[in-house]
Amino acid sequence: MLNFQFFIPTRLIFGPGKLAELGTTPNLPKGNKALIVIGESGAMITNGYLDKVQAALGRQNIATIVFDNISPNPKSDQIDEAAKFAREKNIDFIVALGGGSTIDAAKAIALLTANVGKCWDFIQAGSGGGITAENPSIPLIAIPTTAGTGTEADPWAVISKSGGTEKISLGNDSTFPYMSIVDPELMLSVPPRTTAYTGIDAFFHAVETFVSTEHQPMSDMLALESVHLITNYLPMAIEQGDNIEARTVMAWASTAAGMCETLSRCISQHSLEHALSAMYPDLPHGLGLAKLSLPYFKRLVPGSPDRFEDLAMAMGYDTSEFDENQRASVFLEGLRVLLDRTGLAEESLKTYGAKEEDVPKLVEIAMTTMGKLFAFTPTEMDQDDLECIMSEAIAG
Amino acid sequence: MLNFQFFIPTRLIFGPGKLAELGTTPNLPKGNKALIVIGESGAMITNGYLDKVQAALGRQNIATIVFDNISPNPKSDQIDEAAKFAREKNIDFIVALGGGSTIDAAKAIALLTANVGKCWDFIQAGSGGGITAENPSIPLIAIPTTAGTGTEADPWAVISKSGGTEKISLGNDSTFPYMSIVDPELMLSVPPRTTAYTGIDAFFHAVETFVSTEHQPMSDMLALESVHLITNYLPMAIEQGDNIEARTVMAWASTAAGMCETLSRCISQHSLEHALSAMYPDLPHGLGLAKLSLPYFKRLVPGSPDRFEDLAMAMGYDTSEFDENQRASVFLEGLRVLLDRTGLAEESLKTYGAKEEDVPKLVEIAMTTMGKLFAFTPTEMDQDDLECIMSEAIAG
Repeated sequence: MLNFQFFIPTRLIFGPGKLAELGTTPNLPKGNKALIVIGESGAMITNGYLDKVQAALGRQNIATIVFDNISPNPKSDQIDEAAKFAREKNIDFIVALGGGSTIDAAKAIALLTANVGKCWDFIQAGSGGGITAENPSIPLIAIPTTAGTGTEADPWAVISKSGGTEKISLGNDSTFPYMSIVDPELMLSVPPRTTAYTGIDAFFHAVETFVSTEHQPMSDMLALESVHLITNYLPMAIEQGDNIEARTVMAWASTAAGMCETLSRCISQHSLEHALSAMYPDLPHGLGLAKLSLPYFKRLVPGSPDRFEDLAMAMGYDTSEFDENQRASVFLEGLRVLLDRTGLAEESLKTYGAKEEDVPKLVEIAMTTMGKLFAFTPTEMDQDDLECIMSEAIAG
Repeated sequence: MLNFQFFIPTRLIFGPGKLAELGTTPNLPKGNKALIVIGESGAMITNGYLDKVQAALGRQNIATIVFDNISPNPKSDQIDEAAKFAREKNIDFIVALGGGSTIDAAKAIALLTANVGKCWDFIQAGSGGGITAENPSIPLIAIPTTAGTGTEADPWAVISKSGGTEKISLGNDSTFPYMSIVDPELMLSVPPRTTAYTGIDAFFHAVETFVSTEHQPMSDMLALESVHLITNYLPMAIEQGDNIEARTVMAWASTAAGMCETLSRCISQHSLEHALSAMYPDLPHGLGLAKLSLPYFKRLVPGSPDRFEDLAMAMGYDTSEFDENQRASVFLEGLRVLLDRTGLAEESLKTYGAKEEDVPKLVEIAMTTMGKLFAFTPTEMDQDDLECIMSEAIAG
């Protein structure tokens, strides 16, 4: 019988131009001193976004300090450094401006600012310290500049261990953003390949949570909407970066899929990918997922035919044109077409250093660091299956 | 271009048997003294529900005091009395157990416990005092025992003015329930007519918010799901009160429609109904809506043909079988059938004292007390239109 929990306490403000509301909303967190977290690339400065955020907060009489030592795949040492800084400066709340790495880092910083200890102490898997945070995070305002991670609507912060090969999610009820401002205008400048990598990440959040054993009616609806929209609009967002309609639809699809991550759970494809991008730090997460996806999902389709047929229909296929026992596989055909249209099919993990001999190690990392997601995966897979998937992803 | 706000901070725990989680959840509000608010009918006691709630809170070492002076269509004086009591007893949080009236009353009590003043001072329309509450509500746990009002997932508390003919919504960001436990097992004992009245209320929350000018993608999805489920399951829940599947589906449809009330807005059908049930206090709200609905929506269909065609499809009709200019009207046919199947068509407002000569007064009350909802109504209606709708509802 239907049973589920719903809890997404984030205030989400969505729409082109909505960044301006940061300067007028009556719903800012308490306090008058904010840390603005941005990535090390400088893109937030050159695009003028940082200026806009500082000006908006200025209008609300909030003093701001910028912390910009955040790399892609943010490292636990960076979190520790930033949290120490935030504590010293008596920061009241954090504003994260950037892609998934920046916002995830800021979530961890917000938690660590309110709790004594090192970031990796609070990681609950792999070599993490397994400590439960005593205090809730200080409030975080998330302002995503890419469409894909869904981090604006979930509590998860993916952090990589400094000097290691672990990339693990951290999060609790207090690490949801206090507020997220999703303004697709900030996404107009995202380069085509990044658009593809981040957009396909959102697609897999929706697909994985839809077939997850934890799926529930609200995540089902949001996932099908997200799959439908991404199939139709991601190629357009890649080809026409300045198309605000495509950017807006992708932003909503990403946020919807982020809600799915909260309401349901991602499954083991994400465990396998985290191992890849932990081992090969330059590999974009979305590309890792894209290369895993065909080998991975072809093993899941037979066990959940109805769910995959629903996904195929959401992708726009009339499955009634196919024999009954082939309808679920139409999803794989749709996925193949989408990977082609987004240019992801022609890229290779080998470009980022992936090699066949790493396969056993990669599978081991996936199981020890993100093993929890295997429990939500609808089809059981053994070590052999996982090694085959990983091999095919690297060869493909 | 797509733009919206999403904010539903309530933690929602849904499923048959989930009341037990009140005794185990680590997420209770802070404090150790709760006021349990129940209705004056005694049903919560005779059904054994109050015992279960007290026992569960006992396991969490929460001391409880019961306040049971809450009538259907709760009155502002009752709120004042309860809030005074809660302040005197240093209550930390409130648990509301019952139907929409009880939970709405408890929301108002939670706000008034934290703010100095009388309930009607904080009402923002009609003869209300228009005062903005300075402090947030104390936390509220809502445990609905009927499926329909959606109050478990929205911030609204509908309160009637003691000794008057006004029935107005009160609410702000702090009046969302802190937690809602929606346990369909508590709904198995709801009598058939109450099942019909409350269930049809949820149906109209979904329909109104779907055609509202404030609709947005998330409320659209939830509204169509809710309309679909209620069309199929409300007659079953009425006829087979002990059917847990029908009760569970109706509970979810009600909660989904409650979210729609939060994410979008109800429209002027609700204004008109509040006037009816304020004037004739024994009239069930859902019956008032049911009798208004055909006269009301037939005036809205021509202006929003696509939306009403979507609703007709959600009700299970294949609109492609109809001429293009008739497809939207299929919704009216579906509504007619639903009112028949639920027995609502054969009931009359006259049973509750409604009479033609009250029509101008009723329309005036609707516009002065709940006039705000007219702004979200997609088709403009003048005084004449509204009087015609009200006359037809009373005659029908």
